Amino acid sequence: MRSVEVCVSPDLIPCHELEGKIVVVIDILRATSCMVTGLGEGLAGIIPVEKLEECQKLKDKGYIAAAERDGKKVEGFDIGNSPFSYQDSALKGKWVAVTTTNGTRALVHSLKAKEILVGAFLNRSALVKYLLNKEEDIVLVCAGWKGQLNLEDTLFAGALIDSMYGTVEIKNDSSLTAYYLYERAKEDLFAFLGNSSHFNRLKGLGIEDDVKFCLKEDMYDVVPQFVEGKLTCALVEIDK
Amino acid sequence: MRSVEVCVSPDLIPCHELEGKIVVVIDILRATSCMVTGLGEGLAGIIPVEKLEECQKLKDKGYIAAAERDGKKVEGFDIGNSPFSYQDSALKGKWVAVTTTNGTRALVHSLKAKEILVGAFLNRSALVKYLLNKEEDIVLVCAGWKGQLNLEDTLFAGALIDSMYGTVEIKNDSSLTAYYLYERAKEDLFAFLGNSSHFNRLKGLGIEDDVKFCLKEDMYDVVPQFVEGKLTCALVEIDK
Repeated sequence: MRSVEVCVSPDLIPCHELEGKIVVVIDILRATSCMVTGLGEGLAGIIPVEKLEECQKLKDKGYIAAAERDGKKVEGFDIGNSPFSYQDSALKGKWVAVTTTNGTRALVHSLKAKEILVGAFLNRSALVKYLLNKEEDIVLVCAGWKGQLNLEDTLFAGALIDSMYGTVEIKNDSSLTAYYLYERAKEDLFAFLGNSSHFNRLKGLGIEDDVKFCLKEDMYDVVPQFVEGKLTCALVEIDK
Repeated sequence: MRSVEVCVSPDLIPCHELEGKIVVVIDILRATSCMVTGLGEGLAGIIPVEKLEECQKLKDKGYIAAAERDGKKVEGFDIGNSPFSYQDSALKGKWVAVTTTNGTRALVHSLKAKEILVGAFLNRSALVKYLLNKEEDIVLVCAGWKGQLNLEDTLFAGALIDSMYGTVEIKNDSSLTAYYLYERAKEDLFAFLGNSSHFNRLKGLGIEDDVKFCLKEDMYDVVPQFVEGKLTCALVEIDK
């Protein structure tokens, strides 16, 4: 049986074998939720970069540029890290360069994998369907917060395991932890997250609506795929 | 209110501020359980070292030497990593040099802390009592397994938080995760661990009795303290 394992922080990626496997990068609040929203709303693609200066260079070249640090939009950039800012019809068919605190880091540190995807509650079913059509082992890489485990990413890793339960071997204790956590929280994710550190940071920034949106399921039918530094929609097989 | 935070792997210690705080190192299967047993049974002290060669050097100098790699005793050493091997009256008043896979690493990477203690289910109440008599913030450092989170260490971190609930501020999402996991598992820790990766590795080695012993509570009334490279019993204040 193919296996699934969870990596709770980008700092722990070196403890996981990624070769030949599918990595799903998870940064629910809010990087991967934004990426799913952007591609779901019709962006041509997204270029995630780790450093602010790289993002600035792409902006200078004419890209629309999104930058967030510590949960706030960086001055001088076009958009921040709210999924609502990606629901703008003017962005359709455009490329966006984006840098975020933890999400981009998780992507660029997963390059050894055979395939890198982006997951969020917003594309949960599309992602699960895509994964179930493949045979490779799966590593769910949580972006976390400044190198530490966070609740919302771990919860979504647990949600994916829940969706694939019985078809995958749950390989490490982080996976079991994520699964149990999701089982505990699934009835009301928003209430459960009320205790989390990042949630309370975001609440302090007045973006509760962002959080509520990021916890919605199946708003978009896209699976962002990271190839040669760019995120575009993966080719999803049409049901016969 | 003083705070408590959990670090799920020694590899994530750099993400935590340890200065001025009390660190509790946790390696339930089996390093810290052995340390508690050893000191509880009357050892003079324990010298934990990271490398096998250092342990060999101490053995050559006349120390009793304990060495374990991947759950098995290393050939040529006096004892392995079973808590039962420390229940030997011939060891009373002696010093033991010990090297283990993950536990020692967690100890030697926590040196920036103000005070370093060792915890296990076997000394849960003694440790909690000791901690409640102090005022410093607390970091619970789980030894994990090869850099990854493991269930049993995270569970014991959750057990400590449960014991101190209401007297400490739960600071990071790892702490919440540990607490929820313990709440879920506490009725039957042994059954709950039946799913864990390390538990099954140990079962394969035929040491289920070790595991059962390591999950027993309050067998010993000692609090091992790591000072200048040596573990000895902390001075515990006598109730007035």
